[in-house]
Amino acid sequence: MQPDPSDQEIRIEPIGEIHSEWTDPEGVPIQPRMAEGARGSAEVFTPYVEGLADIEGFERIWLIYHFHRAGPVRLSVTPFLDTSAHGVFATRAPVRPNGIGISCVRLLARDGGRLELADVDILDGTPLLDIKPYVPRFDLFPVERAGWIDAKRADRTHADGRFADESET
Amino acid sequence: MQPDPSDQEIRIEPIGEIHSEWTDPEGVPIQPRMAEGARGSAEVFTPYVEGLADIEGFERIWLIYHFHRAGPVRLSVTPFLDTSAHGVFATRAPVRPNGIGISCVRLLARDGGRLELADVDILDGTPLLDIKPYVPRFDLFPVERAGWIDAKRADRTHADGRFADESET
Repeated sequence: MQPDPSDQEIRIEPIGEIHSEWTDPEGVPIQPRMAEGARGSAEVFTPYVEGLADIEGFERIWLIYHFHRAGPVRLSVTPFLDTSAHGVFATRAPVRPNGIGISCVRLLARDGGRLELADVDILDGTPLLDIKPYVPRFDLFPVERAGWIDAKRADRTHADGRFADESET
Repeated sequence: MQPDPSDQEIRIEPIGEIHSEWTDPEGVPIQPRMAEGARGSAEVFTPYVEGLADIEGFERIWLIYHFHRAGPVRLSVTPFLDTSAHGVFATRAPVRPNGIGISCVRLLARDGGRLELADVDILDGTPLLDIKPYVPRFDLFPVERAGWIDAKRADRTHADGRFADESET
């Protein structure tokens, strides 16, 4: 199926910015699970702060963000947890079309537009696109199979530089 | 914190299209959990099909998509499961800044660029932005608190028209 040329390009603008201790793509934890305790924050821009009302009741939140320092898009990647290649949509690698990341982080506190977070696996300065509450009733699915990842031990917990934008390093 | 005017607008283009039995925003299941068994498909556009390699090993996948028929953005909303208002980021309502939705659906089969799906809570014709594998090791977080939603019984399982784009109805 070919893209429909009448499809409108979708306009996305950051609603805020994520801050963390991770300033280099090399060494960032691969997932929130591997970032346990790593502190960070999200600064929501003033025009959007009203949208945070009642978020403090949630223990975890989804951050939706833009992989702003990922290298060029690749359709086939060898992910951090494997030594052979897979289609990028069968991985969580950042070098994906549209470069959208999701992380379920722990919400510690809110002060106006500032959210104090833990388990942050996201690069410092990352543009924030959306926040959603983590709701077990909606998000928690027991599954039997998780593809190639089932066979892998999680020996590697932090990124090397393989998906970083080399123009910045 | 004010938005940085130097922030680049982020360009997003659909990688495919989602098909389902839900052709009207009114009556769509609120979440995949409330859509159990509802069949649908994702058609990934030809230039991106290579990125699907090995996805068939995963039982569930995250679809990241654009709420293309949502009404104007609101920062305070009364969600389907409540009778009082909350900040939009404390809800999963579609009328959110950037209009990005996430759904964890069941992957039944793949035929080239076509994914056969179940538990589809997404409107027919929705632009698909990304696909990620659902990995319990990454995505499954036991939590104690889920804010205002904890107090609500899920009496309502399907949407009414409150967040639909009225210009299309």
